[in-house]
Amino acid sequence: MQRRAAVTLAEQLGAQFAARIRNRLLPPGSRLPSVRDCAKRYGLSTQTVVAAYDRLQALGLVEARAQRGYFVRAIDEAPSPATARRGGGQEGAAAPMMAPTHATALVRGMFHQMGAGAAVALRGAPGSGVLPATWLESPALGSALRRIARATELEQASLHYGHPLGDSALREALSQQLAGLSLRAPAQQILITTGASQALDLVLRALTRPGDAVLVESPGWAMQFAQMAHHGLKLLPVPRGAEGPDLDILDQLARAHAPRLFICVSVLHNPTGQSLSAASAHRVLQLAQRHGFQVVEDDVYAALAEPGSPRMSVLDQLEHTIYLSGFSKILAPGWRVGFVAAAPGIIDRLLDQKLLSVLTTPTLTERALAHVLEQGQLRRTTQQVRDRLDAARARSVRLAEKAGCRFVTPPRGLLGWVDTGVDTATLAQRLLDAGYLLAPGHLFDPQQQPSTRMRINFTQTQDEAFWRAYVAAKG
Amino acid sequence: MQRRAAVTLAEQLGAQFAARIRNRLLPPGSRLPSVRDCAKRYGLSTQTVVAAYDRLQALGLVEARAQRGYFVRAIDEAPSPATARRGGGQEGAAAPMMAPTHATALVRGMFHQMGAGAAVALRGAPGSGVLPATWLESPALGSALRRIARATELEQASLHYGHPLGDSALREALSQQLAGLSLRAPAQQILITTGASQALDLVLRALTRPGDAVLVESPGWAMQFAQMAHHGLKLLPVPRGAEGPDLDILDQLARAHAPRLFICVSVLHNPTGQSLSAASAHRVLQLAQRHGFQVVEDDVYAALAEPGSPRMSVLDQLEHTIYLSGFSKILAPGWRVGFVAAAPGIIDRLLDQKLLSVLTTPTLTERALAHVLEQGQLRRTTQQVRDRLDAARARSVRLAEKAGCRFVTPPRGLLGWVDTGVDTATLAQRLLDAGYLLAPGHLFDPQQQPSTRMRINFTQTQDEAFWRAYVAAKG
Repeated sequence: MQRRAAVTLAEQLGAQFAARIRNRLLPPGSRLPSVRDCAKRYGLSTQTVVAAYDRLQALGLVEARAQRGYFVRAIDEAPSPATARRGGGQEGAAAPMMAPTHATALVRGMFHQMGAGAAVALRGAPGSGVLPATWLESPALGSALRRIARATELEQASLHYGHPLGDSALREALSQQLAGLSLRAPAQQILITTGASQALDLVLRALTRPGDAVLVESPGWAMQFAQMAHHGLKLLPVPRGAEGPDLDILDQLARAHAPRLFICVSVLHNPTGQSLSAASAHRVLQLAQRHGFQVVEDDVYAALAEPGSPRMSVLDQLEHTIYLSGFSKILAPGWRVGFVAAAPGIIDRLLDQKLLSVLTTPTLTERALAHVLEQGQLRRTTQQVRDRLDAARARSVRLAEKAGCRFVTPPRGLLGWVDTGVDTATLAQRLLDAGYLLAPGHLFDPQQQPSTRMRINFTQTQDEAFWRAYVAAKG
Repeated sequence: MQRRAAVTLAEQLGAQFAARIRNRLLPPGSRLPSVRDCAKRYGLSTQTVVAAYDRLQALGLVEARAQRGYFVRAIDEAPSPATARRGGGQEGAAAPMMAPTHATALVRGMFHQMGAGAAVALRGAPGSGVLPATWLESPALGSALRRIARATELEQASLHYGHPLGDSALREALSQQLAGLSLRAPAQQILITTGASQALDLVLRALTRPGDAVLVESPGWAMQFAQMAHHGLKLLPVPRGAEGPDLDILDQLARAHAPRLFICVSVLHNPTGQSLSAASAHRVLQLAQRHGFQVVEDDVYAALAEPGSPRMSVLDQLEHTIYLSGFSKILAPGWRVGFVAAAPGIIDRLLDQKLLSVLTTPTLTERALAHVLEQGQLRRTTQQVRDRLDAARARSVRLAEKAGCRFVTPPRGLLGWVDTGVDTATLAQRLLDAGYLLAPGHLFDPQQQPSTRMRINFTQTQDEAFWRAYVAAKG
């Protein structure tokens, strides 16, 4: 923060907090640091901090609660007609956001680089869920694009709307890839989507109605909880540990609430890194059959898994399972290609939902990806990434443990689930000041309860500088 | 249909109707031809037709009504828990579909080429809403892709998730393009989507709740009605003629129902081809202000319009307007790039909705499109297409009038709105047998009422063969 006049410092501080609130780095309901703490942290007078907080209150971004401090305003319902109509002009900037907003914090934060008015630029994102771009470099992407730029292919890939299910060549390639996992899914049972995110969105919109109950894993992935909550679903958390989902609780919840779906990761679960045993997979399927729910198997980290890892979709061949995956984690995040494989009757309903949501998805990216897969690039990238990841994980684990973190589950794959011993929401705010974006534990809790745990990305936590900042922030 | 045994003919006929029902070419509630008519049309015995219809009934696809014939089963509510769970295996094929299904007929039909078991391959799609692929050919697409295949650009366009709002270079290019229409929208007020379809989906999900009322134009575009109905909205039809929307009815409906939005086309309205006068645009905006609704201005045919055509978003500079458009109609349907420009507060809510729906959209297609726009290709394509379209329209209008069609509104742009004097749903079924996919009038009616009108695409109705088939089918 630059020292000019007192009023300017208050404006700067206010702008910094406002940017964080708008980018959801300070989620609704969270408390601003106490005036005293904040003054100390930034080396400002308490008057300046009070002036900054007053500004935020005037903007409608925070509210003061007697004896308790300043809180980010929580607006946890759909917009009222009044606010829906008030979007224009200057008022827009301070308009309340739709709930749930917590989960978009991480994503917005990664892109917005802390927004305007930030004191520090982002140095790293140890909480990120993706591989570094440099790990994905391959000549296969460029050559697939050059091939598709030729006149013969260009017309098909560019000048027509694609097949509603998605490009046929890609669906054939995926069908073969799934056959390699021993999952039989002909091309007409595969629907291409904008990443696995849209695959889940379509499943939720086609197969559930607001008010329905769905089983989720706890911990699990925040964006998915947000998708479900936004769709008006009741989340039933099933504890997930190193042994897989807690089957007794799964059974009890299914019996009591007649859920429609169980959204579940078999392989390299986010954030714990654990994979299901074949026996667990079998038991979950028995419960699905008994209680009549569908298992939505989220397999986005598929490529990083050991060959032969068990999948529920493979065991029951899409009878009670819906399989989701994509290529944003392993080949080309910027192409945004995901897919869903399911029984014909379900695919048909997902297709209607897709037509009503986006009409069709881009053939250009889909056909190019088909070429990349046909060239065997997935296998090559996968092998390289796994080897490199093993080294990164070993280094990160050593540094994390040295910094006092305890691994809640044995470290596997890309993501680690660690206990810090302190509240990670507070820790995340402090480390943001140091330029690091964390993934605090409450984001992985379906009820967004405070947590001493956090998710780390082994490729982003190999440098000592981060861990020094971490130790300092923990104080 | 191939003659083998009688039972095989019944199976073939049954399969053909089943494919049409599943592809929504025969929408729920529509009547199958009478047994006598069907036997006559296909040169089969009435016994064979009865056997085929019985098969369809056994599959749960049609129901017999005493004294009235066979009707495609209408299931017009979200799936019950029972059906949601029954998707697996063989049952899936006959599982009831989600409503509303009518509107997806046209789209599915265009791709499915009438599906398995069809007697005739598709010869043409006079009901299509798009330009022929050959009209869009340009070296600019290929060169944009080759440019993006180079190492320097490839990393940015492929190996990262894109900015949540969409690629910055494209948003800058769009901001300039809109400035050319005198619409001031900085890049941070532009959100990139998967076609204009997703733009509308996000607007509906972010700004309305099920049960809300929205104003629509009648006639209007079927897929949009379907999107709104699927979202649980109450549609308030405002008659749209050559003079623009009926302002008195608009006023009355807004007064009575407090609608959230008015979804409206200013320029080259689909299907009537008419553009709003500046005076109408002004009056609509006055009503929007008085009654507190937002105007969602759908401008997907923007590029085909005369320069200087009035837009409501330009008049009020996004105060009560949300502007949607895209490039699927004019540059590259297979890239699926659309966008929405709106006030900052609204963009912020659309962004959250986008993150929860698809996370991000593909940078690859967006950056490539930015290059195409930077090269000035839109201007060149637009000029060529307009010249060519003028010739096609003149020819089509002459043939249509010779075939007895009356233009309901003066022919303009790509699409014509004609009165045939007969029920166009029946006509569409007959012409499908001859290999032509029509866009019957009920698809453009918010209540899907039977209509003697239909939409024609001037680029697809220039050959006499179609009009001969048309006259024969009307017979």
